[in-house]
Amino acid sequence: MIRLGGRCLRAPRGGARLRVLLDLDGVLADFEGGFLRKFRARFPELPFVALEERRGFWVSEQYGRLRPELSEKAISIWESKNFFLDLEPLPGAVEAVKQMANLENTDVFICTSPIKMYKYCPYEKYAWVEKHLGPGFLDHVVLTRDKTLISADLLIDDRPDITGAEPHPSWEHVLFTACHNQHLQLQPPRRRLRSWADDWRALLESKRAR
Amino acid sequence: MIRLGGRCLRAPRGGARLRVLLDLDGVLADFEGGFLRKFRARFPELPFVALEERRGFWVSEQYGRLRPELSEKAISIWESKNFFLDLEPLPGAVEAVKQMANLENTDVFICTSPIKMYKYCPYEKYAWVEKHLGPGFLDHVVLTRDKTLISADLLIDDRPDITGAEPHPSWEHVLFTACHNQHLQLQPPRRRLRSWADDWRALLESKRAR
Repeated sequence: MIRLGGRCLRAPRGGARLRVLLDLDGVLADFEGGFLRKFRARFPELPFVALEERRGFWVSEQYGRLRPELSEKAISIWESKNFFLDLEPLPGAVEAVKQMANLENTDVFICTSPIKMYKYCPYEKYAWVEKHLGPGFLDHVVLTRDKTLISADLLIDDRPDITGAEPHPSWEHVLFTACHNQHLQLQPPRRRLRSWADDWRALLESKRAR
Repeated sequence: MIRLGGRCLRAPRGGARLRVLLDLDGVLADFEGGFLRKFRARFPELPFVALEERRGFWVSEQYGRLRPELSEKAISIWESKNFFLDLEPLPGAVEAVKQMANLENTDVFICTSPIKMYKYCPYEKYAWVEKHLGPGFLDHVVLTRDKTLISADLLIDDRPDITGAEPHPSWEHVLFTACHNQHLQLQPPRRRLRSWADDWRALLESKRAR
């Protein structure tokens, strides 16, 4: 870590190429919107949490606070066949990823954590990437429940707390804004990417080894 | 890198805990034996390569040299449903992994590259791990076609040439002996684990930060 005027900057990982990890759910794919649509379609008589009211990363926990039995009903939605495959891309995500992967000296990987129920999710994540980003991206998919192991300069992810076996991940985690995290006050030097309309190119440039 | 008497030693990654990545096919699961059995069962009239005659990491290439049309027939075997799930564990592998994961200050991850045809392979790799190692290991599975991104002290893998986006992986790659690589002469300081009856505990101890 390098300290500059009170701001903590992680030293560049080094090497000529920049490596960026992009989370899938909540960053490229609209998990929250897809969940709410399917939850309301399957359980039209049950209460739900509007996207503006979402707080906290875990949908099932907030639903469980609404009514205890809603937690497992929420889980049943993303454990269903085609849940992950049917997710819509978030606005601008597909274009941004393709442009990012075409930048010089830039390696882009999709770094995504499958749910524990593995019957459909891992398959559907690969299928989603092929469908929306093309077969060339399949080689750039990393499925892991522990993202701290993956070495990179940047991790763009909507989950606020990313921990694991590696206490000092090489990446800077940039929080991608989502309905559930938009009210969080980040401690400096943590920063956000507010959407794919935000200046992701400047973010990448800020990480290049000078 | 630290040079000691001509031997090149990678500096320990640091941190109190040792992290070990174990490849699945050819290290924990008997890919070669499972392939040969299913190839001979499906194509009893065709020639095959006995395990003692296997050379080179890519089965399909050696079969293609035997007869050009055998390459795609070989590929059709591991692209079939249940190929990966049906693989038998290699001798001693399951016991060794469980013992390794129970060592103090040791984190074990299964680091495996799925084939490009993703219909069955990613799902079946998780199912294999749950079946043979138990559900507790599911959180320790990493699926990636590029293993150089994954930071660790050790990677035990039967593929001789492991390259990717990271030119300087943090791990030492220890070659796990398999029929296809047993005749290779490794350049020092590269080393092997000859089987799960070999002294894997001493290998791990050699990597601990002193």
